Amino acid sequence: MNHDLERYRAPQNFCIQAADTVGKKGQPENKLAREQWLIDHSPELDALQNLFYADARRGLLLILQGMDTSGKDGTIRRVFHDVNPLGIRVHAFKSPSEEELSHDYLWRIHHAMPKKGEIVIFNRSHYEDVLITHVRGWIDEAEMNRRLRQINDFERMAVENNIVVIKMFLHISKDEQRERLQKRLDNTEKHWKFNLSDLEDRRLWDDFQKQYEYVITATNTDYAPWYIVPADSKSTRNVIVMQILLSHLRSLDMAYPKVDSSNWPKIVE
Amino acid sequence: MNHDLERYRAPQNFCIQAADTVGKKGQPENKLAREQWLIDHSPELDALQNLFYADARRGLLLILQGMDTSGKDGTIRRVFHDVNPLGIRVHAFKSPSEEELSHDYLWRIHHAMPKKGEIVIFNRSHYEDVLITHVRGWIDEAEMNRRLRQINDFERMAVENNIVVIKMFLHISKDEQRERLQKRLDNTEKHWKFNLSDLEDRRLWDDFQKQYEYVITATNTDYAPWYIVPADSKSTRNVIVMQILLSHLRSLDMAYPKVDSSNWPKIVE
Repeated sequence: MNHDLERYRAPQNFCIQAADTVGKKGQPENKLAREQWLIDHSPELDALQNLFYADARRGLLLILQGMDTSGKDGTIRRVFHDVNPLGIRVHAFKSPSEEELSHDYLWRIHHAMPKKGEIVIFNRSHYEDVLITHVRGWIDEAEMNRRLRQINDFERMAVENNIVVIKMFLHISKDEQRERLQKRLDNTEKHWKFNLSDLEDRRLWDDFQKQYEYVITATNTDYAPWYIVPADSKSTRNVIVMQILLSHLRSLDMAYPKVDSSNWPKIVE
Repeated sequence: MNHDLERYRAPQNFCIQAADTVGKKGQPENKLAREQWLIDHSPELDALQNLFYADARRGLLLILQGMDTSGKDGTIRRVFHDVNPLGIRVHAFKSPSEEELSHDYLWRIHHAMPKKGEIVIFNRSHYEDVLITHVRGWIDEAEMNRRLRQINDFERMAVENNIVVIKMFLHISKDEQRERLQKRLDNTEKHWKFNLSDLEDRRLWDDFQKQYEYVITATNTDYAPWYIVPADSKSTRNVIVMQILLSHLRSLDMAYPKVDSSNWPKIVE
């Protein structure tokens, strides 16, 4: 991990209220410069993904969590814009189906995990099973804490089986959310993204923030770290997400498999 | 658990060499009486499965392990002979496919777990990933012990999510295996069940026994107990497996869901 990026790692005593949602520090000054930064670094992400796929000794899981309108979709669209879609897979977890509910909550998660060589992005994840479920009172304190332990066990098993697990909380302010929700209401082309339950969740803003703080603290392991990504500015958010991804990928010991081509036939023309 | 059946529970200091492979004690004296016992008790197993399915608050996983010819297939055929096939599912785990190998070894296991209301029998299981893999030297001591911890974590998660986990080691003597392998060689209709690797595994008999002892001891948890089923006599083995299953099912608090039928329409003829 690049030393500069350490500041985005969730600290052991994570306090969500004190966490920055703007994130200008150390980043390109204006939007144009940030967009240029993304354009300049996209080819490297593409090349690293290609190497990751060929190396095929690990999988990579990127988990994106955040309040409504925090920009999970937009992050995926922009950061992976120039990456070969063959090597990545996005999995958006919605409310569980009847089939999924008849199994433990990690059943569908395990099934969607990356295989070796694959980069998978979870748009929402098993963390919903300890966030909204507890805020809305569907599971009690004891069950929530059991699940937090189960999640740590599960992620450790994944990491021990060569999955790189990176978890990001896209952190926006309450004011920024109001503006974004208002934009969805004002723009008929964005109405499809609007859901009445978003407003209900917004009324529970403080409960969600407290729950995020608790859950992130309980699952902020060395093997599957949390990053708190300031997300009030979309371009800054995208730059930071790409920086963290690039840093993790660069730090891996990867190589194209060696092939003995000495006795290959000549191509017949 | 019925007190009489406690003797089949693997003890904390499990010694495989001292474990009985005959199992006559306390069981019907002759083969005919044991067959009759199975016939007499099959309807109860069928009724309990039906109740289990209707209750639908839990799943049940029965794991069968044992040396070659220990009778995993035969046990399933006889014990579940009179149970509605709709409510049970048998999953035989073979050598992993390329797809399965590109994931962690628990990936295919998790996917095959019972849903609520379902009884699933694993013919071999994730235990092969710490048995043959280690005996044949494909994984080292450290990886084997990591997997044993992962398996305990995984099974605890399953149990905490309302899966009843019962594990049985069908225990035969080395002499009994020789006879059964010889029968497969002598009978052309049984040749399809014979595999040259069975003989190779037999040469490693002592290593396998030692490894079974180690693995069973390490995973013999309160929440997912191991039973050592004497399996030299097929009918005795079947009786014991059914006794243990019946005992577990009887001990569950189950009920048919209550339905308010007061305002149902009359059936129109």
